[in-house]
Amino acid sequence: MAFTIHGLPVSQGIAIGHVHLVSHALLEVNHYHVAERYLAEELYRLDDAVATVRGELVGLKAATSTGQAHSEVGAFVDLQIMLLADPMLVDAARELISERRCNAEWALVQQMEHLVEQFQQIEDPYLRERQADVVQVIERLVKVLLGHPGRLPPKRRDGLGTIVVAHDLSPADTIGFRDHNIAGFVTDVGGPTSHTAIVARSLAIPAVVGLHHIRDLVEDDELLIVDGTRGVVIVGPDERIVEEYRLRRTELELERSKLKRLKDMPATTLDGEDVNLLANIEGPKDVATARNVNVDGVGLYRTEFLFIGRDALPDEDEQYEAYRSVLKAMGKRPVTIRTFDVGADKALNGASRTEPNPALGLRAVRYSLAEPKMFLTQLRALLRASVHGRLRIMIPMLAHAHEIDQSLALLDKAKAELRAERIKFDESVEIGGMIEIPAAALALGMFIRRLSFLAIGTNDLIQYTLAIDRSNEAVAHLYDPLHPAVLKLIGGTIQAGARYGLPVSVCGEMGGDPDYTLLLLGMGLRNFSMHPANVLEIKQQVLRADVGELAPKVQRILKMDEQARVREAVERLAG
Amino acid sequence: MAFTIHGLPVSQGIAIGHVHLVSHALLEVNHYHVAERYLAEELYRLDDAVATVRGELVGLKAATSTGQAHSEVGAFVDLQIMLLADPMLVDAARELISERRCNAEWALVQQMEHLVEQFQQIEDPYLRERQADVVQVIERLVKVLLGHPGRLPPKRRDGLGTIVVAHDLSPADTIGFRDHNIAGFVTDVGGPTSHTAIVARSLAIPAVVGLHHIRDLVEDDELLIVDGTRGVVIVGPDERIVEEYRLRRTELELERSKLKRLKDMPATTLDGEDVNLLANIEGPKDVATARNVNVDGVGLYRTEFLFIGRDALPDEDEQYEAYRSVLKAMGKRPVTIRTFDVGADKALNGASRTEPNPALGLRAVRYSLAEPKMFLTQLRALLRASVHGRLRIMIPMLAHAHEIDQSLALLDKAKAELRAERIKFDESVEIGGMIEIPAAALALGMFIRRLSFLAIGTNDLIQYTLAIDRSNEAVAHLYDPLHPAVLKLIGGTIQAGARYGLPVSVCGEMGGDPDYTLLLLGMGLRNFSMHPANVLEIKQQVLRADVGELAPKVQRILKMDEQARVREAVERLAG
Repeated sequence: MAFTIHGLPVSQGIAIGHVHLVSHALLEVNHYHVAERYLAEELYRLDDAVATVRGELVGLKAATSTGQAHSEVGAFVDLQIMLLADPMLVDAARELISERRCNAEWALVQQMEHLVEQFQQIEDPYLRERQADVVQVIERLVKVLLGHPGRLPPKRRDGLGTIVVAHDLSPADTIGFRDHNIAGFVTDVGGPTSHTAIVARSLAIPAVVGLHHIRDLVEDDELLIVDGTRGVVIVGPDERIVEEYRLRRTELELERSKLKRLKDMPATTLDGEDVNLLANIEGPKDVATARNVNVDGVGLYRTEFLFIGRDALPDEDEQYEAYRSVLKAMGKRPVTIRTFDVGADKALNGASRTEPNPALGLRAVRYSLAEPKMFLTQLRALLRASVHGRLRIMIPMLAHAHEIDQSLALLDKAKAELRAERIKFDESVEIGGMIEIPAAALALGMFIRRLSFLAIGTNDLIQYTLAIDRSNEAVAHLYDPLHPAVLKLIGGTIQAGARYGLPVSVCGEMGGDPDYTLLLLGMGLRNFSMHPANVLEIKQQVLRADVGELAPKVQRILKMDEQARVREAVERLAG
Repeated sequence: MAFTIHGLPVSQGIAIGHVHLVSHALLEVNHYHVAERYLAEELYRLDDAVATVRGELVGLKAATSTGQAHSEVGAFVDLQIMLLADPMLVDAARELISERRCNAEWALVQQMEHLVEQFQQIEDPYLRERQADVVQVIERLVKVLLGHPGRLPPKRRDGLGTIVVAHDLSPADTIGFRDHNIAGFVTDVGGPTSHTAIVARSLAIPAVVGLHHIRDLVEDDELLIVDGTRGVVIVGPDERIVEEYRLRRTELELERSKLKRLKDMPATTLDGEDVNLLANIEGPKDVATARNVNVDGVGLYRTEFLFIGRDALPDEDEQYEAYRSVLKAMGKRPVTIRTFDVGADKALNGASRTEPNPALGLRAVRYSLAEPKMFLTQLRALLRASVHGRLRIMIPMLAHAHEIDQSLALLDKAKAELRAERIKFDESVEIGGMIEIPAAALALGMFIRRLSFLAIGTNDLIQYTLAIDRSNEAVAHLYDPLHPAVLKLIGGTIQAGARYGLPVSVCGEMGGDPDYTLLLLGMGLRNFSMHPANVLEIKQQVLRADVGELAPKVQRILKMDEQARVREAVERLAG
């Protein structure tokens, strides 16, 4: 009998295939004390497992370097190799073995739980999700200790693929599955920024996550349909349903191959308005992916990713290199680099202070201004890199005029230092700010008078406007990009920019979501920044749009103040 | 040599006097293990100390019941007596003694640290400050165990009072100091909602808190001036400075006695506009204080205070009693009762879930709707009480239309139940909502169409608009009620209410702060709700105001978008 389960759609497309259940080694761990005389041997077991896993990961890394769209996966594998060398992980487990005589598996699981608890304190949902790396590295170690090799799915010959059903997937898992005709991923846990989601999107494999106990509801080899667009999983469908989804899948594939042909077309609306499609990146490794889809520049370079998994801040030279290489690779196309969006809670290693509400605490520009030496180092590195391309510097989380004034004063100081040291920089570097706090969107004059461009960070702006922490499952359902208040702030910012001749971009998730492209175009937006994977789909929306027609309709939407009516009206824009 | 230190002004007025340093018993605690055979004796020491402290507190309680403005203090003492009986406190310490053989002082301090850690997770600054009760009860116990009686200041004969300088003060301390001519309080820690602050205000004693290491900077008996209005402490002032502050103090006292004469005057502006001055209360105990200053009603009854220090929710009958007694005491004057503003983090006893950002989490109406049984019980109790006065029900933290719709549906259900049970209630009870999330202030139509009145909660509204947790010291300086964005939201709400004939009140701190009265009057506000202690001062502002003159000036302020200009213009309103 067929039944349907709903989860979170995180990677589009339709998959039809047979279940391959992936077991969860961590659930099988026994806890026992090791006799004194076997302690040395237990430590050796651990070291041996670490060496084996490192070998596996390095092998996977090599395998990805030949693959195409695997740069994201490669980065995750790198991170996991780094974690293997982190003293917080293996050394702490060694201590638990030698001092408390725990068996190696138990020691690893204890240390994992300790680290996961620390991660839970982190406010940023992306970084918080990185606890999955710790869990997955430990899971890999435990699997080796327990003597399970990663069981790979059998290659099928019936033309149907394999649907991997797991509690959670590591990037290493997903790479291991290459060449095994994996059609889809389905997991118990995870959100839009989980590994499974990110990797599935980068491999263009449909995925639905957050299905809770799906592993208990399906059996190995059972037939499954995964609709990664609508977040639906159908267990045991009959031939009629399979046929229907096959047709739908063919349509989608056609659509996707059409998309690829858009790569070299300019993003111009039907009525001749040019639109810039920009990439959000996290470092030099993402530039190739961005150039693959021919972006008009980098709209958001998140420099805090230079921090991850490190004990100390990167120094000026290391930062300079990271900025220079991106600027150089992008040539004449503008690169907008955002200064660190970190807070007291995000200094992953050596974190000490925790705030009761980190999202409302000392982060981003507030933190940078509280640590002027760190900020000055970053500004110097940015200025030095500015001669290698078209740099724009962007300051996150602004709410007050004095935050801009202080940042600009530090920038002047950095410039004066460089002049004194006879180091060249681009004197005309533009400074912009993120509009992601309601106060900023409501007092735009203060920002427009001081800055050269604005970027709307829709994710945070929505969270603060609605007083919702979207990564908190208990209230995530209250997150609503189409709340009339949210649209008023976004629309108002875009229109104020147009009025004063200041470029405005959207670099939150709304910018890369085709459901909102027509709405944003109608508001007047001409700069969309997004994950490179979304660029062609957004371009398709742009090519279909007639902004002359959209603008008055959107003006009417901005005047509505009932959520249900706004939703209907936005849906009608596409029709 | 005189020097000046700046802190947080929490209780107005000027004090001139000599330092009385209060020691901090908790710093003197030794840690040792008790020999097995002395364990029974150690447990007896603890029980004995508990009995002694209970006796002291009960004595203090009796002492306050004769005093006048001591009802706040009495409530604190009650809370501390309750804590003494809390198994989390004394029983847990007993366990640490009998199982880990810790000495009694050490056991208490360990348990205190454990509890304080739990309190740190609480998002609401008021409730979070209540950790001070735990610390103070334990401090009292430790003092008894160490054999220090509370050292009282010597009575002085030079006409100057005593300035108590402490790390932090407990309400019991402050009562102990009665009849000792205490002129002022100065503490290392604390904020506007700390004990020291609340008690000092209720005793009308000037106080400055948050001075960090003041105890290390002054000596016993040294001369000190405390300016509780500007947050300044002058150590070792010369005769000229003392004389100046004496004059200023005399002026202030004159001002205060003038205020008292305003009690029975109607709050009408110079140009004849009537203004309602309402009280914020936390329970029946506050009604007398409110009636003392002749308020026009209760603008905010914070029902979550029925929770504090309890294991279980109050049942329907107990809630009914608490609501009825306030309604009855206020007679024909309206009483606005806010449904529970609690969250997963505020269930003080038995709290389990902690959220990474509780201020953006499951709280207030979100929590009530997630616990419909609890919410229904409260709505039933409210409706039942409605026959005893003029009840208005107010829902906190609304952001979405469906939150109102669901709340109203539950209210209808409660009404239907009561009708079926033939229990009477007032069919015309009005339902209103708090405007304290930016989304609500920006989509007012949604609220105006569904509700009968609005109340602006400025504290939360400012926090979310600026993305600031004001109780986080690292960012508290960014809290700015005069940010143009904040004024736009407040002014917009007041004006929308006027346009649609919906009463609007302000019940956050701005409502009780005389610095903002003219501004709010100029925006069109006619309902101010505040701590009863502020009512006469606000009335004085109202009596001096000419709203016809203010309105156009304030309209101009609402169009400004530079923080500095707004500040200047608001200051000029008074001139």
